[in-house]
Amino acid sequence: MVTSLTRDAYERRMERAAAAAAAEGLDGLIVTPGPDLGWLCGYHVTAVTERLTALVLAAGARPRLLVPALERPDAEAAPGAGALDVTGWRDGTDPYGELAKWLDPKGRYGVSDATWALHLLGLQRTLPDSGYGALSEVLPMLRAVKDAYEVERLAAAGAAADATYDDILGLPFAGRREREVAADLSRLLVRHGHSQVDFTIVGSGPNGANPHHEAGDRLIQDGDMVVLDFGGLKDGYGSDTTRTVHVGEPTAEERKVHDIVREAQQAAFEAVRPGVACQEIDRVARQVIKAAGYGEYFIHRTGHGIGVTTHEPPYLVEGEHLPLVPGMCFSIEPGIYLQGRFGVRIEDIVTCTETGGRRLNTTEHGMALVR
Amino acid sequence: MVTSLTRDAYERRMERAAAAAAAEGLDGLIVTPGPDLGWLCGYHVTAVTERLTALVLAAGARPRLLVPALERPDAEAAPGAGALDVTGWRDGTDPYGELAKWLDPKGRYGVSDATWALHLLGLQRTLPDSGYGALSEVLPMLRAVKDAYEVERLAAAGAAADATYDDILGLPFAGRREREVAADLSRLLVRHGHSQVDFTIVGSGPNGANPHHEAGDRLIQDGDMVVLDFGGLKDGYGSDTTRTVHVGEPTAEERKVHDIVREAQQAAFEAVRPGVACQEIDRVARQVIKAAGYGEYFIHRTGHGIGVTTHEPPYLVEGEHLPLVPGMCFSIEPGIYLQGRFGVRIEDIVTCTETGGRRLNTTEHGMALVR
Repeated sequence: MVTSLTRDAYERRMERAAAAAAAEGLDGLIVTPGPDLGWLCGYHVTAVTERLTALVLAAGARPRLLVPALERPDAEAAPGAGALDVTGWRDGTDPYGELAKWLDPKGRYGVSDATWALHLLGLQRTLPDSGYGALSEVLPMLRAVKDAYEVERLAAAGAAADATYDDILGLPFAGRREREVAADLSRLLVRHGHSQVDFTIVGSGPNGANPHHEAGDRLIQDGDMVVLDFGGLKDGYGSDTTRTVHVGEPTAEERKVHDIVREAQQAAFEAVRPGVACQEIDRVARQVIKAAGYGEYFIHRTGHGIGVTTHEPPYLVEGEHLPLVPGMCFSIEPGIYLQGRFGVRIEDIVTCTETGGRRLNTTEHGMALVR
Repeated sequence: MVTSLTRDAYERRMERAAAAAAAEGLDGLIVTPGPDLGWLCGYHVTAVTERLTALVLAAGARPRLLVPALERPDAEAAPGAGALDVTGWRDGTDPYGELAKWLDPKGRYGVSDATWALHLLGLQRTLPDSGYGALSEVLPMLRAVKDAYEVERLAAAGAAADATYDDILGLPFAGRREREVAADLSRLLVRHGHSQVDFTIVGSGPNGANPHHEAGDRLIQDGDMVVLDFGGLKDGYGSDTTRTVHVGEPTAEERKVHDIVREAQQAAFEAVRPGVACQEIDRVARQVIKAAGYGEYFIHRTGHGIGVTTHEPPYLVEGEHLPLVPGMCFSIEPGIYLQGRFGVRIEDIVTCTETGGRRLNTTEHGMALVR
């Protein structure tokens, strides 16, 4: 199920977005198919193609949507369509010329991050004096602060991921392939209400040392550490959690590395409060791991925002000065990766409240021992 | 299964692409995750995110691939990785600065169509005197001419789509929802070897008049025209075919409209031969429909290329002057859409040979009568 709000709710989102753009000195926003478009007006384009679809928002103006003529009926059926004007363009005509009629030739616009280069270059060619910035850079706050409705959707997605983790602990690991465990995670996420599974990482033994290893044909063995990182969308909002489990008895070093990651995750969580810069959360996690002597093995940022996508601002990374604001929702996921040996990562989705962090994943951080 | 060639085959593709870019006066190509990247070096990125991955090709230089550090093991496992140098960038560093080191600050580059605006803007900011063009516009021929291996892959995908059509004709239509028939199409495509289903359009009665209607809750009834348009990827290459069937006896008008579309499709097919401009195929189909008095109801282009994607150059559309070349593979899919009533479309994938067109879909064009 894709989240669907009322026409009025979408109208308010579009108005707020246009006002926020104006406040940043932008002449407006140009939004192509993807999560921003779905979030702003409820139009979810299933197959994104080379044909231009673009929503234009500007303060004080009624929103306008340009769509390929043959997709017009779909656009007009979107729940937010009543709050905007839909214009169709036909194959063989120039959609950039059409879109340019709605823009200031010398204007500066925010465009969705994933807008195709094909389209951006078409606009730049048509309006050579116009300027553009990527939405996550010029308006990182657009979807970053969730309202109560959205936080509860994320909490529900998190609870479904937690239930999936509880279930997977009861299944056998040793003697099965990573791919089989991944298929179980996928099946369980769906059983617990997910409409879409985005990733089911099962990194056993040395594969756990590759943070983005998906799942392969490796047979899981007694003595393996296994990184389980899984998530997707439930009712239009994302889940993303990681636990590292062990098949049989861990070694002292495996316990130690797991404890360090657990401590780093906890310290970063405790540092969450309004006003703290995103990079500070990353620094807190990194400092714990560095102090324990494993700094060079924590090779990625500490976290990313989550909402109608599973990766979005705010990013918890060195150089990100955005302050945390109540309603922001993001992952905290430090890890240690020992090449050729094993990896450990622990990840929760956390929302910033007035008084500190609130975890949207609540399963045990302790290293679960599986069969 | 994703198509996988040898390291040497990928090396030759990358060399040819770099040479073609130089011949067009470009300083090189910048290719981000998607079909171009998979086709050029065999690196299929499953989850495209905000983290930059980019392949840089330039004549006379060894190909270089920039990837997020944590995805480096995946990149190095790609079948073409042996023919390129892989460099990782870490979270918190500037990937555009890193990429820029490999580029001419005043150079002009082709970039893949679907490269994120986020990345193109990052490059433009880092190298303000550089210039970019979308690959489908500056190098439309990059993947447009298929070799014998590729044509046979497309023929195999087409045969699987044909088998799916044959099977669906034996199933009941009346009394079932469009969604159920679409699920059958999906299931059958997979049974006949597809690894990915891209679309299963079931447009019954008035829904058939919306060319991009997917499939909904409408109950199919006796007397309905039903547009069936389905396809996906088999062994890494695409299928895409459309037939319009009828539940029970058609009216005289339904027969007439179906005959016109069939005649338009046949005329366009017969116009295929090397040297003919793409737009000419569109004109031939359009002329048949116009002469019959339905010109205003044919609201899309006549066709699109197909290969490792189901939509790519060449486009058979007014204004496209590219001449057909042996090895090009594309759809021919005229249609007539009568709003609120019904639609008809007939589509085959066709490859241009030295002597004319060869159909990669071979099921009957006649209006099948279903239950």
